[in-house]
Amino acid sequence: MFLYQLLSFFFVVSKKEEKPKYDLSLYKRGDLLEVPRTLFTHFGIYLGDDRVAHLIPDILPAITKNKSAIAKMVTNNRLILGAITKEASVRVDSVADFAYGSEILINHMDKVCAQPPLDGDEVARRAEKLLGSVTYSLLWYNCEHYVMYCRYGMAISYQTYQFCTTIRKIVFSRLSAFLTALCGMCTVLYVGCVTPLTFLLVLLVSFTIWMAA
Amino acid sequence: MFLYQLLSFFFVVSKKEEKPKYDLSLYKRGDLLEVPRTLFTHFGIYLGDDRVAHLIPDILPAITKNKSAIAKMVTNNRLILGAITKEASVRVDSVADFAYGSEILINHMDKVCAQPPLDGDEVARRAEKLLGSVTYSLLWYNCEHYVMYCRYGMAISYQTYQFCTTIRKIVFSRLSAFLTALCGMCTVLYVGCVTPLTFLLVLLVSFTIWMAA
Repeated sequence: MFLYQLLSFFFVVSKKEEKPKYDLSLYKRGDLLEVPRTLFTHFGIYLGDDRVAHLIPDILPAITKNKSAIAKMVTNNRLILGAITKEASVRVDSVADFAYGSEILINHMDKVCAQPPLDGDEVARRAEKLLGSVTYSLLWYNCEHYVMYCRYGMAISYQTYQFCTTIRKIVFSRLSAFLTALCGMCTVLYVGCVTPLTFLLVLLVSFTIWMAA
Repeated sequence: MFLYQLLSFFFVVSKKEEKPKYDLSLYKRGDLLEVPRTLFTHFGIYLGDDRVAHLIPDILPAITKNKSAIAKMVTNNRLILGAITKEASVRVDSVADFAYGSEILINHMDKVCAQPPLDGDEVARRAEKLLGSVTYSLLWYNCEHYVMYCRYGMAISYQTYQFCTTIRKIVFSRLSAFLTALCGMCTVLYVGCVTPLTFLLVLLVSFTIWMAA
């Protein structure tokens, strides 16, 4: 599944040439729209009249002033370079440009989030108020933080939470502490750098992981 | 302030010899009691009749079966060794033994927590139900997780949250990514191990920190 996502991610630009039709009557102002994009899920807020506000990384505004080029659909290349350089903006696109060829889930987060959604107009007002360039962070301020703030009043990201929980379970475990001590000592012996300082350093790192487990 | 806490932490055992009196009429069944202990804040749930249920690390049950020795007040040495070995229990102590000589804050968390507290009897029932030995984790299951579950129904820890936020800000920052790249390259040059693999490794670690910032 992951391999498929990885492959489709690289070939996605050509695939997205033929835009599917979206039935706009399905969306209400303030709805939270959700689509798969690259390896992650992308989120936006429907404003009405075929307009979606979404926070998306984009390298283009950092390298050109050409407004018509910037206004075009954000391709995956622009998106990835934007994420790396932390350049992003909250912008308005058509539903088709936002969805980038994928199927759209509507208000799916309402079933997941314990907090009830705000009134649709209030959601859209919040979304519009935040339009403009932002400093992007893949983990701490992404498209999900933006829509969660607009619709539920809390700028949180389940994708970040799941990622952090997984990393924590792998890195901060008892096994990881033992393996760090073992690999550290083996490396020190292999490099031939057995001093009290290197020994203490390996011990300190392993102990920190043990205590954080 | 931190230095003072550090010093008082080492001299705390002798200081705690003279127990202050506690006015038991101030506490109701289900109250959340809070005291400073070592470098952290310690929490417990008042059960009534001078009894406090609290989760506390303790090495003693792992090395002796002597019940009267175990039942005595948990000293800081027992506590620290328990935290390191991850041995802990939810146990009942008198208010004086729980407080360990410090002043007690009552239901201070009610002002901090967005969730309203459960009924006092329900809080105490939850606290009693969890009595017994537990696997301790300084960050992921400590005395605060226990009382927060009992009083608010959510096993969370503000101390862990604050600690993680601080670590995140220090470790996962743009500056930290630059410094990692710089120090990594200096180390590689100093050790005289300039290969494409070591260069790639330094680059990968720095890039990971940059993306996580």
